[in-house]
Amino acid sequence: MASFKVSVGISNRHIHLSQEHIEALFGPGYTLTKTKDLSQPGQFACEETVTLIGPKGTMPGVRILGPARKASQVELSATDTFKIGVKPPVRDSGKLEETPGVDVEGPKGRVHLDQGVIVAARHIHMTPEEAAEYSLKDGDHVRVAVPGPRGGSLDHVLVRVNSNYELDLHLDTDEGNAFGLKNGQQLEVSTD
Amino acid sequence: MASFKVSVGISNRHIHLSQEHIEALFGPGYTLTKTKDLSQPGQFACEETVTLIGPKGTMPGVRILGPARKASQVELSATDTFKIGVKPPVRDSGKLEETPGVDVEGPKGRVHLDQGVIVAARHIHMTPEEAAEYSLKDGDHVRVAVPGPRGGSLDHVLVRVNSNYELDLHLDTDEGNAFGLKNGQQLEVSTD
Repeated sequence: MASFKVSVGISNRHIHLSQEHIEALFGPGYTLTKTKDLSQPGQFACEETVTLIGPKGTMPGVRILGPARKASQVELSATDTFKIGVKPPVRDSGKLEETPGVDVEGPKGRVHLDQGVIVAARHIHMTPEEAAEYSLKDGDHVRVAVPGPRGGSLDHVLVRVNSNYELDLHLDTDEGNAFGLKNGQQLEVSTD
Repeated sequence: MASFKVSVGISNRHIHLSQEHIEALFGPGYTLTKTKDLSQPGQFACEETVTLIGPKGTMPGVRILGPARKASQVELSATDTFKIGVKPPVRDSGKLEETPGVDVEGPKGRVHLDQGVIVAARHIHMTPEEAAEYSLKDGDHVRVAVPGPRGGSLDHVLVRVNSNYELDLHLDTDEGNAFGLKNGQQLEVSTD
């Protein structure tokens, strides 16, 4: 068993959009406006937000994360899903087969996503060098220990390995709030 | 080490009110209308709801749980607290010293609570007979294991013992959602 420390990043609800959908929502030829780089190199938060329209409610102010992707993807907390009435599975990013869709509204138009709504599975990003150091490979699962009054453990945390990644544990707001975590907090990972 | 099974009850945001506050919000002599008995004997959900008014937002439709209590108490998830801009601690029910207050609005009036807003600490209710069987006493802490894709463990779960209690694990919606739990699901408790 090896153990190492990782920094927590708590992801609020957000959307990744294809260029086609960006233009349908914001107008022909539109490009996103970066406001802040994210922990993963090349990824950024945008000035632009959209409104999600589900069977049971609407959710305004959902942040777009750039750059444009091949397929649009909406990442919600389970708490969010009850508010708008969608029932997505817990999924790894990019695995969108048989996920529900939702309507998305921007200032210049509205699109219906046939699929793409997920509750993101918790995961750790790392480089191949870090994975080698911890005897891990892409697709492995690890356990993360959380100290404090709302402490406990998060099992089955997916390891994602890519030379473009920065070492970082990504949780959603339900997980962050349930465990009383703050962005940047250091947690212990065990690989047993 | 002993272990036993317990049923999960997930508590949505709610408020307990003193008779004085019930009358200030709903009118002189008003009594609450029971709609549903809760798992703990004598406790019930009411038809009536109130609106919370915090520094950063309002939250309508907050369910009242009866019967009337000595002191009013508001139980929110951490997710809720960000929405209305209050910063309560994680607390055991009834321990309200140095907790923040909030404004509460009903159909006939509005009251300002000087204190009483908490994020409820997770806890297990049990009878003295059950406590004896599991070698536990009031105030002890136990660990609860959660299976499944969002599994893990909840440490420091408070044990509350009273002859009026029914065996039940109470979590809030953040905890229920983070672990992918459903009401009534059976979980394993360990007393090591």
